[in-house]
This record gives sequence, C-alpha cells and structure tokens, in this order.
Amino acid sequence: MAWDILITNIKGLAQVRDSTLTVLSGSAMADLPVIEEAFLAISDGKIADYGEMQSLPNVTADRVIDAKGRFVFPSFVDSHTHLIFAASREEEFVMKIKGASYAEIAASGGGILNSAQKLQHMSEDELFERSLARAQEIIKSGTGAVEIKSGYGLTVADELKMLRIARRIGEETPLKVKTTFLGAHAVPKSHTKSEYIQLVVKEMIPAVAEEKLADYIDVFCEEGFFNTDETELICEEGKKYGMKPRLHANQLHRSGGVQVGVKVNAISVDHLENIGKEEIEALKRGNTIPTALPGAAFFLNLPFPPARDIINAGLPLAIASDYNPGSSPSGNMSLMVALACIKMRMTPEEAFNAATINTAAAMEILETHGSITRGKTANVCITMPIPTLAYLPYSFGSQLVGQVIINGRLIN
Amino acid sequence: MAWDILITNIKGLAQVRDSTLTVLSGSAMADLPVIEEAFLAISDGKIADYGEMQSLPNVTADRVIDAKGRFVFPSFVDSHTHLIFAASREEEFVMKIKGASYAEIAASGGGILNSAQKLQHMSEDELFERSLARAQEIIKSGTGAVEIKSGYGLTVADELKMLRIARRIGEETPLKVKTTFLGAHAVPKSHTKSEYIQLVVKEMIPAVAEEKLADYIDVFCEEGFFNTDETELICEEGKKYGMKPRLHANQLHRSGGVQVGVKVNAISVDHLENIGKEEIEALKRGNTIPTALPGAAFFLNLPFPPARDIINAGLPLAIASDYNPGSSPSGNMSLMVALACIKMRMTPEEAFNAATINTAAAMEILETHGSITRGKTANVCITMPIPTLAYLPYSFGSQLVGQVIINGRLIN
Repeated sequence: MAWDILITNIKGLAQVRDSTLTVLSGSAMADLPVIEEAFLAISDGKIADYGEMQSLPNVTADRVIDAKGRFVFPSFVDSHTHLIFAASREEEFVMKIKGASYAEIAASGGGILNSAQKLQHMSEDELFERSLARAQEIIKSGTGAVEIKSGYGLTVADELKMLRIARRIGEETPLKVKTTFLGAHAVPKSHTKSEYIQLVVKEMIPAVAEEKLADYIDVFCEEGFFNTDETELICEEGKKYGMKPRLHANQLHRSGGVQVGVKVNAISVDHLENIGKEEIEALKRGNTIPTALPGAAFFLNLPFPPARDIINAGLPLAIASDYNPGSSPSGNMSLMVALACIKMRMTPEEAFNAATINTAAAMEILETHGSITRGKTANVCITMPIPTLAYLPYSFGSQLVGQVIINGRLIN
Repeated sequence: MAWDILITNIKGLAQVRDSTLTVLSGSAMADLPVIEEAFLAISDGKIADYGEMQSLPNVTADRVIDAKGRFVFPSFVDSHTHLIFAASREEEFVMKIKGASYAEIAASGGGILNSAQKLQHMSEDELFERSLARAQEIIKSGTGAVEIKSGYGLTVADELKMLRIARRIGEETPLKVKTTFLGAHAVPKSHTKSEYIQLVVKEMIPAVAEEKLADYIDVFCEEGFFNTDETELICEEGKKYGMKPRLHANQLHRSGGVQVGVKVNAISVDHLENIGKEEIEALKRGNTIPTALPGAAFFLNLPFPPARDIINAGLPLAIASDYNPGSSPSGNMSLMVALACIKMRMTPEEAFNAATINTAAAMEILETHGSITRGKTANVCITMPIPTLAYLPYSFGSQLVGQVIINGRLIN
C-alpha cells in the first residue's frame, strides 16, 4: 500500500472529526478540533488517515508535502452562489456611489433584469467559459463545493441554459456542485407577476425536472418581488418534482421569508439581515439552517445578520458568499470568514464551522465534505505559514490559502 | 537607444499626467486621466515614454510585456504604516470578539504596550527579517512607496532600532521609504506622562536627528494619550531638528488633533473618523492633507471618515493603510481603495487619486512618484485582465494586481 499524497509537519490540522456529523448548533459551534504537529494522508481521492506526526505509520507516499508552519483545514463549502452570469455590473456600483437610487438604477436597465438581459443574449458556450473562470478562481481561493443558482434566465430556455452550465461546472471542474432553480428571482418585463408565476410553475419546474437539472428550488422572497404566499406556492410545486426548497429571506425587510422557509421545511433560509425574535423563534421550531451572506451585507452597506443572537439561541449558523454581480461580487470564502469575525462577532472557530460543516449540511453533502474525516473526499486547503488559525480572519487583506487539494489532486 | 521594458496593448493606462502635480483637491479628484490602447516605455528605472499604441515609436526594447486586456496604473503610495513590529496580535482580536473591553485587553498586556514589549525583546536582525517579509508582501500587492513609523520602541534604544530597520527596508528593498519618529505613541509604564514627554523631547528627538533616522515626527493625539498642548510641544521640538509633523488625529474622539495639525503646519492629519464642520473649516485654513485610513475603521468597526464632506469642501483627501498589528493588520492598498469606494462613497477615480497622487504629496515625493509622468520613477502595477478600472474596487475580494514593476524592474 502507498498513499497518493502525504502532508507532513502540519502546524495545525483543523476541523478533524472522526465521524460524520450533523449540523453544528449554538455552543457546539465554538469548538474546532485541531491536531497540532499532524500528518494527513490521501488515497484514491479520499482522506485515508491523519494523526500526530509521532504516530505516522510507516507507509510510503507518491508525493510528500511538507506543511511546516502551515495549517490544513477542509476546503470551504459555499452553499449560496449565483456564479453563472454574463458580465460584471461595476457600472451600477459606481452609480450607487454617485447617489443613484435603486429606482434610478432599475430605470437605466440595472439590477437582476440587467443580468438577465445580458445572459439571454450570450451563447451557452461563452457563458460557460466565463463561469468556468469564476469557478477556477474560487477553487484557488479554497472552495471545494459550491451551490449554484439559476435566476438570470427568466425564460424557460435561459433558465435551462443556466442550469445546464451549472451542471457542466460540476462535470468539468473538480468542484462538487449542487444546483438550485431560482426562476422566481424577479419578474421579467414581458409578464405580469401572476403570469410569470404560472410560467415558473407550469413550464419551468417541469422542464427543469425533466432534465434533472436542479437539486433545489429557491424563491426571492422579498418586498417588491415574491410574497410569502407566492413563495410557498412555488416551493410546494418544486417539492412535487423533487426539488427541496432553500430561500432568499429577510435581506431587505422582515418579509416573513424565514417563517415560510420553516413552514415549507426549507433546507436553509439565506441572508437574514432583517430578523428579530420572531424569526429566531420560528427557526427554533424547525430544521431549516439559517445562513448569513456577509459579502452582500458588506457590499450593500446593510446591517449584518445578528449572528450572536442566532447562535446564542442554540441555532446553527452557516456562512456563504452569495457570489453574484450585483450585490456580492466575490466568492472568496476566507474573506467571508473574516467578515463574519470582524462584523458579526463570530469567533474564528465558529466562522470556520459555519463555512465548512454547516454549509455542507446546507448542501446535504456532510457524508463527503466539510470536515477532515477518514473516507471523506480529500478536499483540503494548505495555508501560507501563519502563527495561528485566527490569523486568517485577522489578516483580512491577505490571501492566505496557499495550496489547494480537491478530490485528492493538488491544484496549485 | 533601446528601452529596458516596453508594455504594449494596455487596455487603459491610468493616472497619466504630463507634468508633476500638486495634491488634488475637491472636484479635481474626480478626474483620473486614462489613455486607452496604450504603451508604456521604461528606461534606466524611469518612465521614458507613453502614448497610444498607434503612435508607438520605432524603438526596440529588451523586454516586451503584452498587457492586452489589462490596466496599468502607478504603484500605490502608502503614506501611513507601522510595518516594523515584532508579532501579530490576533489574540486581542479574538478577545474583542468575545466581548473584552479595551481596559481588559490593556490589563492583560494588550495594545501598543504589548507590541512595545515584544519589540523591545527582539533582536534588530530578527525584527528586520519579519518586517522585510511584510515589505515584500506589500510590494507584491502593488505598493511602491511607503511611510514607516516608529512608536513600538518607547525607549531611546528601541525607537532608534525601529527607525534603523525602517531605513534598512528602504535600502534593501526597491520600496521608496520615508520614516517618521512616533516616540509619542503611548506612555510606557516606567514613566509618568510628563517624564516620558521629557524623554521624547530631550533625548529621543536629538538622538534620532543625530543619526538622521526620521523625515517626520508624529504624535498620537488622542484622549488618554497626548493632548493638543503636548502634541504641539513635541511637534515644535521635532521641527527644530528638521522633522516635519504629521499627526494621528481624531480617530476615537474630537480631540482637537486636526486643529493642532493645521497650527503646526503638519504635512498630514491621519484617521479623521471623528470630525465635523469645525475640523473641516480648520483644514480649509491650511495646507495639511487630510488622510483617511479605511482599514482601521473597518477592522475596529468605527464610523468611516466623512470623505464626501471633505471632498465637497474643496479639500484634498489621501488614503493609506495604517498597516499595524493592532487596528489594521493589512497593507493591501487595493483593498483600501475598495473600502474607500464601498464604505466612504468615493468614486473609483477619487480613490485612485487619493492612494497615488495625494499620498505621494503627503510623503513629499510627487516629483518622482504617484503618476505616470515622463521622468518619474518607473513604479507601476499591471492588473489581471479586467473589464474596467472600476472593477478593481468592485471585485473587493480578488487580488487583481498581477505584475508589479518597481524602479523599472519587474518584481513578479
């Protein structure tokens, strides 16, 4: 027997869990198990063994990586992105800086409908290439699994196009990809809302299901977009076709999104900038995972989700990037962890748990991802030399993920 | 004649100014001159020529860099750092997250005195090596000139040690370095404040001047540290020895720091989280350059300086990193520009001007740095392929400085 890769002299091997876990909640999030002076062995794309250097078995390896001074942790799992899009939207960013209102930006063709128009006019191959470049960038920054939503198509053909590309990203990169149908992202100008909801329910959902393109269904439950009744209707239709709900909830208003998420038994409710006691009580009654997207709160200058209230209530909390061209143009999960610590007062341990185990739970891939566990997929990040793991969120402006291994293969 | 380096096919050559400038104020900050489809030629460490590709002269070059799809702009000038320090202080960051007060952190040996104690016990060579690594990191992220302060020594010997290391950074790296004596950073426990001020004035300033170790003098003018009278006294003593003042002002309180800075004719007053109309009126009466340090406001969760009020008053504004282990553990100037845009509502053009020309003015190196001007030092950043220059602050989580040239030499 020989290992494929052996990483030696690891200063700290973090997030070591000897068995598969469920989501971490409340005070359990404070604990991030670390083996100091450790080794990690990889075979056949899986984590084969790990432990203290002094108990390293006498097994040869095809490749040995000396990680002296470096930490190793499981790749980030990013459970909320929109990384299939045609083009960046920095022109709207500049308009906002200059004082343009949301209405003015929308009137000038901005917002989700801007992304939809650009995407509708782009070929599937070109859109794939642009999305592939983003996928490769997040791989280098330490992400090993990612959820990708549709929602810039807004026609049957273009929603299918987006989801096919998302599936292709999962096939042609080493990323583990789960896909989400988000036809109900905005109402295109060609339809009234009720007409568009009919299109989503009667045509899009069956067509998406026919090609098995989506694992989940999402609705943009927000004032001015889809209300709670509409959200519930669309989720229930999706469920009939095997797509579990996950929801955009409470970014801009206390919209009832969290409550409807719990009601439809959503996997997760994401955003949560605007929640209070009622929403926390609702979450305590279900199994829906609250997910914060600190990149969007940062970029839009919104209040950050009340992470401490959520964790202190004994709930789990996940952290994802919301990578998208309008409100969070970054898929850098290290920076999301830093924002969680600096802006949401999460400890580094809580933030790492939120961005690995809890997002893996929110993508239903805990069997294979989110921790250093024997038999799980060998997805790990090797840091630059750093004094402590807390240094990573503290040194918020540095790219400290040095090398990345996905599916047992060294990427960079 | 042959050029050393020729950069061709530049998508946008930004910050092109045909003559040396003064600081940019008010509405003049909105303009960032860009040549599209440009070339840039470098000889003998200087900018030799530039213009549109179609007017490229028939001159050979030892090295040609094709910058298709890339922007080129002058290296960042970072006019406020404390990059000589012994060790990071992420343990205090975690204490703060967990709710420890400033007093509790100080009682446990934290804060400036923590950095001082660690620095005092470290050899000059070890301290140099650690600081050199930081200097190399900021070079890679696009900084070409940097101001470095003392202030973690707090003894005659250790302040001199810090400043000697700062000078050595200027000698052993391609960075243009200006140094600032900040003996009055905090009062060490060994002295009363008046005793320590006497030490600063009677011993440190003459000793620093004797070895010609500092270009400037700085005082931490802040409630609980040095008041305006003490600040003025120390600045006037420094001036007698040829050190011009630059001040820490108005980070935590409306301390009168801005007014005393104008009174002593300081080059700059830095921080400005807590200013109002009075301070802006005071700045209008002098030539002192207001400087924002957005990394510190971000990391400490302080209000950001009122950039729009400052610029709308017709004043200049500079942007620096404040790189230090306690309150801004990053020297990444691209991220400072992003923070200026996202959090201070500066346009990308204003932020680039603030971080190049205006910081060069604040370091009195506008003759040689801060713009693409014939004869200036060849310090430039070549970006990754990006659609617009505004994409750089918009894509806040990406490292978009690709290659760096300092003193006409390609670094990475």
